[in-house]
Amino acid sequence: MELYGYWRSSASYRVRIALKYKQLEYNYIPVHLIKDGGEQHKQSYRQLNPNGLVPTFVDGTVILHQSLAIMEYLDETYPHPSLLPGTAQQRGAIRAISLDIASELQPLINLRVQQYLMRELNLVDEQKQAWLQHWFRHSFTALERNLEEVAGNYCVGNQFSMADVCLVPQVYSAERFGIDLTPYPLLRSVYGRLSELPWVAAAHPSKQPDAEN
Amino acid sequence: MELYGYWRSSASYRVRIALKYKQLEYNYIPVHLIKDGGEQHKQSYRQLNPNGLVPTFVDGTVILHQSLAIMEYLDETYPHPSLLPGTAQQRGAIRAISLDIASELQPLINLRVQQYLMRELNLVDEQKQAWLQHWFRHSFTALERNLEEVAGNYCVGNQFSMADVCLVPQVYSAERFGIDLTPYPLLRSVYGRLSELPWVAAAHPSKQPDAEN
Repeated sequence: MELYGYWRSSASYRVRIALKYKQLEYNYIPVHLIKDGGEQHKQSYRQLNPNGLVPTFVDGTVILHQSLAIMEYLDETYPHPSLLPGTAQQRGAIRAISLDIASELQPLINLRVQQYLMRELNLVDEQKQAWLQHWFRHSFTALERNLEEVAGNYCVGNQFSMADVCLVPQVYSAERFGIDLTPYPLLRSVYGRLSELPWVAAAHPSKQPDAEN
Repeated sequence: MELYGYWRSSASYRVRIALKYKQLEYNYIPVHLIKDGGEQHKQSYRQLNPNGLVPTFVDGTVILHQSLAIMEYLDETYPHPSLLPGTAQQRGAIRAISLDIASELQPLINLRVQQYLMRELNLVDEQKQAWLQHWFRHSFTALERNLEEVAGNYCVGNQFSMADVCLVPQVYSAERFGIDLTPYPLLRSVYGRLSELPWVAAAHPSKQPDAEN
């Protein structure tokens, strides 16, 4: 198995957590998102991933992009331990939180959007910061309310799941961008608990071979 | 079953196609996204959907948001006909395309982002148009390349799937925004084929009770 990723990319971080949770061995192939205009835009990488985004996951002849699609594939192919435990209703709650993070928040704050805001719209740094703050606040406020309904020790009840896999990198990214987490006590307590899990700790950006200072 | 949606919302449109494909009867409850500042922001709706987004789906005691989570739930609970047919690899390809659309493109062009661009960043109309054009072009270029690998009559091979459910509303939205579809011949031919399917035609925004001229 091969994972093409970048140490600080949230979507790469998600797949690392999932692979480590399932104790699957993989080769990690760094794709530098900034150096030389971004290795993700090179023709050789685009053949694996037409979007020019990380991660890409390879399992024999299977080549997959999109972190949630990769995790669903992993869960179908290597089912234990499960990233989607429980009933259809619980799995629905897990997927809804995962998508709230991966498909409502992260796409608005990722590198390519920040680059567009700065280069094409010539935003000043305060405006970019306000953009980031706005979408984090909007999403985390909704997430906190959602967690009040469904969280136990983890995002959905007391079993680790794909929702937790999605939460961890997003909180890491919030901290990088200086987002105030005080208004989200439940999110913070779940995150604190998650951070101590060995498969989460081992997937941390700072532990990856391409980590920079 | 109840579906809270808005006629022109892509995510609502997706769930309508899925429900009609599976021949599931549902009550459609319109949530007007613009009138009176947006019914999706009202406290009563936020209790169902903390993000203040459409759609929300209710099946007995199950209340779900996020269109892809709703479709996965439908597929687990009412499996025939399947929205995720095939092997784990094919299901991976279906989910990757679904997410390329629902979680890389749509979040960047939806109403709340357009409102932020206009109200907070004071963009002029040409800048907003350039934003829309940019992200559509980026995504549809990648999608066309991806379809060259995996499409048959439909997005992934010859079986209708969740990827097709996601494609249709996105092309409808592209047409609304005046995106030139000439560079995407494969996308257009799959879309043409999909548009004629009865469960797709019946889910069209213009056929909904809250449709406006």
